[in-house]
Amino acid sequence: MATTTLPPSEVQAILDRGGSALRARMLATEQRLREVVGEASGPIAPHASSIIAAGGKRLRPLLVLLAGRCGEPEGPIDAENEQALIRAAVAVELVHSATLVHDDVLDAAPLRRGRATVVASGGRGLATAAGDLLFARAFGELVRNGSPTQLQILSDASSALAVGELRQREDAYDVDVTLDRYLHRCELKTARLFEAAARLGVLAIAAGQQDALADALGAYAGQIGLAFQLLDDILDVGGDPDRTGKRRGGDLLDGTITLPLILARERDSSLAELDVRGLSDREAEAVCERIATTGALDAARGRAVAILAQAKRQLPASLSPSARELLELMADAVLERYR
Amino acid sequence: MATTTLPPSEVQAILDRGGSALRARMLATEQRLREVVGEASGPIAPHASSIIAAGGKRLRPLLVLLAGRCGEPEGPIDAENEQALIRAAVAVELVHSATLVHDDVLDAAPLRRGRATVVASGGRGLATAAGDLLFARAFGELVRNGSPTQLQILSDASSALAVGELRQREDAYDVDVTLDRYLHRCELKTARLFEAAARLGVLAIAAGQQDALADALGAYAGQIGLAFQLLDDILDVGGDPDRTGKRRGGDLLDGTITLPLILARERDSSLAELDVRGLSDREAEAVCERIATTGALDAARGRAVAILAQAKRQLPASLSPSARELLELMADAVLERYR
Repeated sequence: MATTTLPPSEVQAILDRGGSALRARMLATEQRLREVVGEASGPIAPHASSIIAAGGKRLRPLLVLLAGRCGEPEGPIDAENEQALIRAAVAVELVHSATLVHDDVLDAAPLRRGRATVVASGGRGLATAAGDLLFARAFGELVRNGSPTQLQILSDASSALAVGELRQREDAYDVDVTLDRYLHRCELKTARLFEAAARLGVLAIAAGQQDALADALGAYAGQIGLAFQLLDDILDVGGDPDRTGKRRGGDLLDGTITLPLILARERDSSLAELDVRGLSDREAEAVCERIATTGALDAARGRAVAILAQAKRQLPASLSPSARELLELMADAVLERYR
Repeated sequence: MATTTLPPSEVQAILDRGGSALRARMLATEQRLREVVGEASGPIAPHASSIIAAGGKRLRPLLVLLAGRCGEPEGPIDAENEQALIRAAVAVELVHSATLVHDDVLDAAPLRRGRATVVASGGRGLATAAGDLLFARAFGELVRNGSPTQLQILSDASSALAVGELRQREDAYDVDVTLDRYLHRCELKTARLFEAAARLGVLAIAAGQQDALADALGAYAGQIGLAFQLLDDILDVGGDPDRTGKRRGGDLLDGTITLPLILARERDSSLAELDVRGLSDREAEAVCERIATTGALDAARGRAVAILAQAKRQLPASLSPSARELLELMADAVLERYR
């Protein structure tokens, strides 16, 4: 369980390859994030460090910055454009943090990434208001870019996140949920904000019309996000608790039916008749074992790997070799954690 | 306890005096609100009617529309400007609704305005996500006006709401809270969104630069909002439960120290030494009685009345007589409920 805010090695590798400009932007993003969350003062200052740490790997801001690098005009960058890119990265991470703070309220989660959650240290009321504040500040940050298009992208992604969360609750304990419905939920819950990150990166810094690039990188990032969610769901069933810091079967205990069970129930029909209500921790772990036995975890992982490969293949031909390399590394980083 | 979405009589009076254009706009606002909340379909459809009813009197959208009427250019209005005004009214009400849905989660409130709350009918998880969705949709609605300035106003007001909520929790059970701190909390929690409503109304429909009018009506609306919050706090201590549908002393039970107690503790020093932790319902009612006995309720009401009178006096001289009349009626409507 990581208790540091240093980026994990696979993200660090991207920063190392990205050159000093990328590293400086990531640092500026981190610094601004701390300011906006009010690390020094402000009503959520006592909880700032757990909020800042909660986001973890900073995959979404990194996507903003990488996409920005692809859309960057030749020659020296205007300081205002430079700031616009940072603001987009910050706004995306703030939306992500807001949802994490609210998720922890619902789960009454004591820890996230080894730190006390906001709800654990400040209570439900404080954590709900803190999430709302992060959300409002995300829009407050992005609004300074002066672009209704960018705000539209962020509000659409934020709506999608909430709808995804609602769908998940709607489908809870439904062991028959279709694969399509599951994938659509992952789109809403995860892929859309990844997609928004890449779009915002291009639009925040682009000199001229870069809609085609924003579309292409948005599609790439959406696939990365989808694969990320699939892998996360696989990890919940098949991960090593010593590495993940989470016990297996947490999703099952919440009634959340994910890809491994969806694939496993076709292989072991007794799983299709499972009742996942009221499982004990032990029973949930036993179900995880049964799912693993069917080979569904490998099948699910294969699907995520295929999505990532597809994302790489579809990167636009116009990218510079170094931009392409970084985006490919990003896809690898998503997979890395699951090797 | 009202179980209908019909406007209460004092708001109806404003609509009646406002002419057919105002009524048509209020109707369009109501209709669009239902669409956005997804009355017909969508993930929160089953809860749409309680969300729509929760806002109650529609004071905030009414302020948007009244301010819009003041800023309205001569002659026929462009359909796009007309829509922009409605969108601003809808966005403001959506932010208000989002906070109500989240407030009910915290209080685990079974009823609001005589209807089951979202948290009561759908659970905490659903209600938290539903609030987030309303919030995201508020921005999604306003973004269509294409104005970063308007979005800045909404995000600032939304931040203020959350900070006000956080302050309230910070100050909970502090019987010594200063008057200034209390008033500042009311500003954040209530006045800022009222102010934003008036500003947005002017800016959404104004043909040219109307910044001075937006400032003036914003200041007026902020005072209305402040008085509204003061009166709400007075009602909590001194209201007739048969009329308000709420038992007395609810704020005290939450540890929320408001104007009546702040004024009363200067008149009865034993109240200054009160410990409001762990009060029973009966004890809270008894404290309400003690507060009332000091005459603090009348003093508090006097303060709210003075703020409303001041708001009216400061209305800009340039307003048409009919616009002025409607805004004055609005101030009266806020007071009406407390007579």
